[in-house]
Amino acid sequence: MITGKNYIGDQQSANGQTTYTTFNPQLNIENSHVFTEATVDEINEATRLASEAFKTFRSISGEKKAHFLNAIADEILALDDELITTYCSETGLPEGRAKGERGRTVGQLRTFAELVGEGSWVEATIDTAEPERQPMPKSDIRKLMVPLGPVVVFGASNFPLAYSTAGGDTAAALAAGCPVIVKSHPMHAGTGELVASAIIRAADKTGMPNGVFSNLNSRGIEVGTQLVKHPKVKAVGFTGSIKGGRALYDLAAQREEPIPIFAEMGSINPVVILPKAIKNRGEALAKTYASSITLGTGQFCTKPGLLLGIESDALSHFVTTLSEEIVNIEPSCMLHPNIVGAYETNKAKAIAQTDLTVGVDYNSEVQPNYAKQTITIVKGSTFIENPTLHQEVFGPYSIVVQCEGANQLEQVISKLEGQLTGTVIADDTEAANYAEVISALQNRVGRIIYNGVPTGVEVCPSMVHGGPYPASTDSRFTAVGIHSIKRWVRPFSYQDWPNELLPSELKNENPLEITRTLNGKFTNQKI
Amino acid sequence: MITGKNYIGDQQSANGQTTYTTFNPQLNIENSHVFTEATVDEINEATRLASEAFKTFRSISGEKKAHFLNAIADEILALDDELITTYCSETGLPEGRAKGERGRTVGQLRTFAELVGEGSWVEATIDTAEPERQPMPKSDIRKLMVPLGPVVVFGASNFPLAYSTAGGDTAAALAAGCPVIVKSHPMHAGTGELVASAIIRAADKTGMPNGVFSNLNSRGIEVGTQLVKHPKVKAVGFTGSIKGGRALYDLAAQREEPIPIFAEMGSINPVVILPKAIKNRGEALAKTYASSITLGTGQFCTKPGLLLGIESDALSHFVTTLSEEIVNIEPSCMLHPNIVGAYETNKAKAIAQTDLTVGVDYNSEVQPNYAKQTITIVKGSTFIENPTLHQEVFGPYSIVVQCEGANQLEQVISKLEGQLTGTVIADDTEAANYAEVISALQNRVGRIIYNGVPTGVEVCPSMVHGGPYPASTDSRFTAVGIHSIKRWVRPFSYQDWPNELLPSELKNENPLEITRTLNGKFTNQKI
Repeated sequence: MITGKNYIGDQQSANGQTTYTTFNPQLNIENSHVFTEATVDEINEATRLASEAFKTFRSISGEKKAHFLNAIADEILALDDELITTYCSETGLPEGRAKGERGRTVGQLRTFAELVGEGSWVEATIDTAEPERQPMPKSDIRKLMVPLGPVVVFGASNFPLAYSTAGGDTAAALAAGCPVIVKSHPMHAGTGELVASAIIRAADKTGMPNGVFSNLNSRGIEVGTQLVKHPKVKAVGFTGSIKGGRALYDLAAQREEPIPIFAEMGSINPVVILPKAIKNRGEALAKTYASSITLGTGQFCTKPGLLLGIESDALSHFVTTLSEEIVNIEPSCMLHPNIVGAYETNKAKAIAQTDLTVGVDYNSEVQPNYAKQTITIVKGSTFIENPTLHQEVFGPYSIVVQCEGANQLEQVISKLEGQLTGTVIADDTEAANYAEVISALQNRVGRIIYNGVPTGVEVCPSMVHGGPYPASTDSRFTAVGIHSIKRWVRPFSYQDWPNELLPSELKNENPLEITRTLNGKFTNQKI
Repeated sequence: MITGKNYIGDQQSANGQTTYTTFNPQLNIENSHVFTEATVDEINEATRLASEAFKTFRSISGEKKAHFLNAIADEILALDDELITTYCSETGLPEGRAKGERGRTVGQLRTFAELVGEGSWVEATIDTAEPERQPMPKSDIRKLMVPLGPVVVFGASNFPLAYSTAGGDTAAALAAGCPVIVKSHPMHAGTGELVASAIIRAADKTGMPNGVFSNLNSRGIEVGTQLVKHPKVKAVGFTGSIKGGRALYDLAAQREEPIPIFAEMGSINPVVILPKAIKNRGEALAKTYASSITLGTGQFCTKPGLLLGIESDALSHFVTTLSEEIVNIEPSCMLHPNIVGAYETNKAKAIAQTDLTVGVDYNSEVQPNYAKQTITIVKGSTFIENPTLHQEVFGPYSIVVQCEGANQLEQVISKLEGQLTGTVIADDTEAANYAEVISALQNRVGRIIYNGVPTGVEVCPSMVHGGPYPASTDSRFTAVGIHSIKRWVRPFSYQDWPNELLPSELKNENPLEITRTLNGKFTNQKI
């Protein structure tokens, strides 16, 4: 049941005066639940509880954390229709998407449960003593990963389940042993509260300390600002715009004690279509890309927003076909009136640039909050000179850049800011002839795709969802997959520590039977 | 031969007007060589060359990088007496220390050569395709670590070899595939130039691209500031003071494209001496700690600057013995007149605080630039209330804090800022009775030591040299050991990439025979 209150640990609380509602973009009406923004006192209490909870949560067993994470997954599934209905009413997204995203969210939680239940993720590294070594005896040193402390998570507007309240950042932080305080996204506050209630029930059922999770409502920037500046907060996860992510990055960096922040932000996901491929498969590619650009109303962070080719009749034909294909796709609803508004504004700003041609701009009337898909075309030289054209337009929009040749293609890529993904479309052995273009692309992205589309982010250990700034604020980490846990942990060494006082992961007898690096060799043996 | 010039790639250059000399603190005279600070043009050229070199250096084989790193080690050893003499003349440190540090430096280079020569360090992670998977086929995704780009290294005053020109930061960055630009430390510019010449010779002999290494002289902050702000620079390593490290951290964070910086800064390295231990072994401990506090004239970042105990006759006796032992140690030379000056100023500031007792202040006359060792004593309540007493005094100074009981001991620890190390001195099963004290200490440090001293940082995979701010600017990394390479690399994914275009580390046939994670299992098998 949605109450509109905050969760300050396991207590519901709504002491504030600022209230707000969510919006149903399909019906174009406000939803009925009223949410109360967290107060400064509630923020302080949530961080105090998180800090207290950390004292025990940071060293509970992987087995217990696994129970907790699996229980969260179970409790989310138990929310059943209420969650799906609320999700759809707050996002305009269809039921199939809601269920798919729930599946992904539950899958992520269970994957992290498996990871910490097994235990080898702590990267246990042991160098045993050499008391006889000359000129100095060598100590026994043993290292493992330990959690940083309370983590604040800012959910994404476009992933109300998989990258919000119990999404990837939260799952990874709890798995690491970090209490989590979620700054609830105002556009899906009801979905957020329901998921928060599932986490609180799971924490209660599995005996987690109170404060291991809190969920704070907020409409504006104040709650988030106070959280990032709070001395008891030790790390921040964010998914959203460059403007929002950079503002939080700056706050985190300006603290007396700077803290790590991982912000996954903007990307236009360049796609390089090489000449032979466009000649031989132009029509099929146009169809594939019309679909990828409009998938989820263009609201994926991996939407291909930049298609790069070399001038040719085949490229011109591709643009024509892409325009025809995309205009035949039925427009769909965006997440919120503000998001449609921003889409139209940013698109208009792009279109207003000089020397840019509009390939197609869906020109029939659409329902309120529905997005009109658009393709524009520009020359390579124009694109290079105009950084405005490099900016992400969040929604079903993409720009085709016609380059004079391979050199200009490489120049265009080198001028780009960091990106989540890059894609190369090539025929047979064609890619080998564009080594410098591909090398330049690799240097700008976190993931490179061959003959595919960037949309669709597989949750698996080999996935990188991140990349050079501004794709993320720290390219050394990924937001997706089990290695995303590395954002919330630090290495810690014990020197000559008594075996009975060591954590299980480092004890001589290796009671958890985990894989460790013992004197330079991977092994699950005892010492 | 020392020329006083910069290395801009493999060219020596001295176009600037600002010159300076180094100082011999033992003889209390200026050394004769004159060094010329790098100009803005020279800085721009060094970064341009580094950026160009990165295009090839980032993908050369591990085998070639290993040759390069081993050649640097060989060339450093070939510098022979000239290096040792110059080192001693610029630091006041004895020949034995110079040779020991050279051994460590060479050892670090060879360890990284071994690491990248073997190749498994890239954490290759492969998830093969499942074309038949429902509801969506699964792509083939393969991940490995790739270098960030040109790295700027600021050497440490107190480690002219092991943490300077070819020290840990440089060795790790070159091993990762990042070109390095060293901002030479002005106090040992001659040592720096000699080592730079060794690196340049090694790069030439092993066919590395020009620009893979540059060495820039600088006396003030301008060269370093320009380097950290330079768009072509992609990461920064620093070892030094909190003030210097924080200033660089702020510059790196304020860039249009923020870049990672790892600064290893200050630490007072708290030592908790539990009651039974101090009762049974007080005199031996006093002797051990008098030696650790004065080791290298107290100029190690792991010097024990804070000794914590619970009030008792045994603690009082320990303080008396410590004072007697330390005053009997012959004073030694500090690195530079400025460093001695800062030591005396900071020590005087500490001593001037109210309710503080001076245990012993070496009061005989000493040679110029020699430090007078000092012990002070304070109550726990006074220490908690006065943050000035928590600050590092770089040199042979330590403060003993007498706490009322275990609770106050825990309070003192919880009030401390982040530290490189914490030490627990305990008898038999005593430590188990102080679980909360030890837990609080673990939460503040990067490495915890049992019944030892914090000085002496073993270079091995399990070592953490780092810790919560301000011990470092990012506790998620270590500055020592093979894992320090992680500071300079990012994960990168290939999706459905053709086998022939993949880097060797990810190819089906596993030509390097490295250990990889293949569909969740560690293996060195082919696919």
